[in-house]
Amino acid sequence: MTSKKLVNSVAGCADDALAGLVACNPNLQLLQGHRVALRSDLDSLKGRVALLSGGGSGHEPAHAGFIGKGMLTGVIAGAVFTSPAVGSILAAIRAVAQAGTVGTLLIVKNYTGDRLNFGLAREQARAEGIPVEMVVIGDDSAFTVLKKAGRRGLCGTVLIHKVAGALAEAGVGLEEIAKQVNVVAKAMGTLGVSLSSCSVPGSKPTFELSADEVELGLGIHGEAGVRRIKMATADEIVKLMLDHMTNTTNASHVPVQPGSSVVMMVNNLGGLSFLELGIIADATVRSLDAETTAAAWPNVAAVSITGRKRSRVAPAEPQEAPDSTAAGGSASKRMALVLERVCSTLLGLEEHLNALDRAAGDGDCGTTHSRAARAIQEWLKEGPPPASPAQLLSKLSVLLLEKMGGSSGALYGLFLTAAAQPLKAKTSLPAWSAAMDAGLEAMQKYGKAAPGDRTMLDSLWAAGQELQAWKSPGADLLQVLTKAVKSAEAAAEATKNMEAGAGRASYISSARLEQPDPGAVAAAAILRAILEVLQS
Amino acid sequence: MTSKKLVNSVAGCADDALAGLVACNPNLQLLQGHRVALRSDLDSLKGRVALLSGGGSGHEPAHAGFIGKGMLTGVIAGAVFTSPAVGSILAAIRAVAQAGTVGTLLIVKNYTGDRLNFGLAREQARAEGIPVEMVVIGDDSAFTVLKKAGRRGLCGTVLIHKVAGALAEAGVGLEEIAKQVNVVAKAMGTLGVSLSSCSVPGSKPTFELSADEVELGLGIHGEAGVRRIKMATADEIVKLMLDHMTNTTNASHVPVQPGSSVVMMVNNLGGLSFLELGIIADATVRSLDAETTAAAWPNVAAVSITGRKRSRVAPAEPQEAPDSTAAGGSASKRMALVLERVCSTLLGLEEHLNALDRAAGDGDCGTTHSRAARAIQEWLKEGPPPASPAQLLSKLSVLLLEKMGGSSGALYGLFLTAAAQPLKAKTSLPAWSAAMDAGLEAMQKYGKAAPGDRTMLDSLWAAGQELQAWKSPGADLLQVLTKAVKSAEAAAEATKNMEAGAGRASYISSARLEQPDPGAVAAAAILRAILEVLQS
Repeated sequence: MTSKKLVNSVAGCADDALAGLVACNPNLQLLQGHRVALRSDLDSLKGRVALLSGGGSGHEPAHAGFIGKGMLTGVIAGAVFTSPAVGSILAAIRAVAQAGTVGTLLIVKNYTGDRLNFGLAREQARAEGIPVEMVVIGDDSAFTVLKKAGRRGLCGTVLIHKVAGALAEAGVGLEEIAKQVNVVAKAMGTLGVSLSSCSVPGSKPTFELSADEVELGLGIHGEAGVRRIKMATADEIVKLMLDHMTNTTNASHVPVQPGSSVVMMVNNLGGLSFLELGIIADATVRSLDAETTAAAWPNVAAVSITGRKRSRVAPAEPQEAPDSTAAGGSASKRMALVLERVCSTLLGLEEHLNALDRAAGDGDCGTTHSRAARAIQEWLKEGPPPASPAQLLSKLSVLLLEKMGGSSGALYGLFLTAAAQPLKAKTSLPAWSAAMDAGLEAMQKYGKAAPGDRTMLDSLWAAGQELQAWKSPGADLLQVLTKAVKSAEAAAEATKNMEAGAGRASYISSARLEQPDPGAVAAAAILRAILEVLQS
Repeated sequence: MTSKKLVNSVAGCADDALAGLVACNPNLQLLQGHRVALRSDLDSLKGRVALLSGGGSGHEPAHAGFIGKGMLTGVIAGAVFTSPAVGSILAAIRAVAQAGTVGTLLIVKNYTGDRLNFGLAREQARAEGIPVEMVVIGDDSAFTVLKKAGRRGLCGTVLIHKVAGALAEAGVGLEEIAKQVNVVAKAMGTLGVSLSSCSVPGSKPTFELSADEVELGLGIHGEAGVRRIKMATADEIVKLMLDHMTNTTNASHVPVQPGSSVVMMVNNLGGLSFLELGIIADATVRSLDAETTAAAWPNVAAVSITGRKRSRVAPAEPQEAPDSTAAGGSASKRMALVLERVCSTLLGLEEHLNALDRAAGDGDCGTTHSRAARAIQEWLKEGPPPASPAQLLSKLSVLLLEKMGGSSGALYGLFLTAAAQPLKAKTSLPAWSAAMDAGLEAMQKYGKAAPGDRTMLDSLWAAGQELQAWKSPGADLLQVLTKAVKSAEAAAEATKNMEAGAGRASYISSARLEQPDPGAVAAAAILRAILEVLQS
């Protein structure tokens, strides 16, 4: 099956994409009759050297995204993964010559088609009397033994656009730019890595990669790399890449010495998220930073990053009152048992809660509750919890606000903060019922949810109604609590028939919600865990 | 199965990504002990309003990518798709206050968790005496009936960062910024569309989407949208989106009037290529441009694009000599028959050649040859081809250079240009053999390939060897050509045992090449097609 892409037609996709870029960018113009984009201020470049690059489409933002003052004068785009037509390259050379530039440098990646087509256009333009030089960039460090075809041209070419662009902007002549660019090009090395295949619009994926495989050293059209490795962490893969690229027995290694300044460029072959790019950049700087002075570019300021202070001290928290209650007694131990049972219950429910959440929200409800459980477990390791219920709830509130995150963290934080207040004076059963009331009130005030809105509040509210019985003289702790837990569980189950009135699930039509709300299920499970420990 | 991502650990991925961004960007600093990034020149902002935003990670480059002069002062990042902790929001507020800013505006997307956590932090900071305002952005235009939770905050928030950033940079006060931002926020509308699901690191995809389905109006965490539509062209989907967003019966529509100036923002939910983004931008400008004055932002200059001249006239081609040979005679008709057979043969081989190429190159060999075939078919429709072989080959050379593209186009162009020369004086069988020799020589010179390198040259070379027989007196046209075609086919088949010495396949180890070279197969098929017509 062909890949799913948002295009109008396979045949026209490169044209449409270039037209869109030009439509949104007043600094660009198309050259009529050709898939060529040029600076719209071409006529201001009289007496300067023009820089033209290009190649197959499908590598956006290369090449047209790099047109501008201080970078390229224009680009010639082929169809996806196809070298551009000689006639269009020639037309672009003629257009910049006609605008009064004194010569053109063609910046070409080392692929046979590009070399041939740009070379043919160069010969034809020179026959017309236009000075044209051509640099062929081969920066691929994948292959340890060099083939006849030479190193492939990869993303290092963008760096050449920048270097040549700065020289042309400064008024340097054609031959000198070509000479300096060749020096830079020889010092470069690039290595591709991919977790999945690419596909040409209208075609099947170019290759197959298993779920646990990574292609090392592949080309920018999905050409097979040097080898397949097993999926590993970002740190391990970055180390492998740097080792391969700097190994002096590799014929295409980067000639970098200890103490050298290097420019690092982390770019995307197309399928990696910005999140992952950040992780790779972090891993690379950590690897390189041990012995080099590295400047990052582009999209970042070009300064040395070694030794720079990367963090700022956070202002101090306002002083907390010291903990006044002795911890470690039998009440404290019981609190610890309750919390441990709550934590193990939530950890056991992680995948179930995530599955429920995937049907209605963003699929992380179990993850969020597990994060809370692990935070509580870590905190319990530091020492026994406070025996005072008010202090315990306040502590848990701070802990969940800090570590659980998400709506649940904030709502539990609000609930616990509010619930702690009635327990400061007394810890009788009526006070516990009042604590529940206060917690429920706070949760509704900030969370905008009411009972029946298909949220965690539904379980807690149902339990709170039963716990009113604790306010009557002679009420039994466990009898009332048992009824409250059952009521909470029934309420959680009943959310499956509710339309969501708050939270993320409220954006989904009720017809698509067929399972109970995960937050309500988690809240009921917490109450059940508390009951079980108190019963034992 | 969980999705494949390049991370070090699921738990640490948001931290690592932020660390990487800060490591590469000297304008950023981390706040120690928190997942917070701040401008590193914080102390230069005395007397100004600070702008803090943030939310769950997983939306990179939001939010830290928008920190800088004229945009955000800092951001607080949660775990992936999880609201940030209140303690970290509060720490960021304290840090910018300590640096001497006169107040803080919190820019928050309308999600319960973000609203709760930023709200809690705001209340706590105000209790400490720090002036803090909060704007909650809800720009989602998906839902035609408004829910209690209000419109979700989507990518329009980035526009608010820019507007607020410009105001803060200009020294405008906190309340005035909050007021102006609220005006802008009310005028915005955003609609998401997705071709595939997202997934939280370490988790399964959030939802399933069939190969022919598109989710319309989904949320930024993969929350279900308003409905699923069938896959369509970019133009159709953009039209559907604009109609939905401007339909006045939709409670969350954008209040735009004919003649209004609008700011258009096309952004990526994460999985779309730059190629597709360009196509969408083109489709949107075409739709909007009919009746509005639109300015595009960001990454593009903010100017009106309506009526701007988007293309430049290409310089004229040097004059060609007029065609001196009468076309349309019997020789011309025979040429047309040969070319038609060659074209239908290549079109029939398209998927086979692509399949062969996927194993060794970039999978487009059949597509490239079909493009050539269609170009020749179109050209034949314009009138009969020239009867002069030299003129015919020259014409075909120009046509293939222009329309076929890629290495094949250039190599065939070179081959035909060179082959045309010996045929200018004579069109005898020895001259045709000499034409083949000249074509083969040119192909080798520019293409860097030799016989045995597993390229199209192998078939043509084998045929050329047999065609030497045409140089002997009394040689038979069809007898020799038949042998030449058989030899070419055998040579094409033999490429399956060759290691690639040139072209893209040369980057692949021979063990992985088990099928013949598609270029060689195509060349042999072209010769066979010529033979078949001449035989008939």
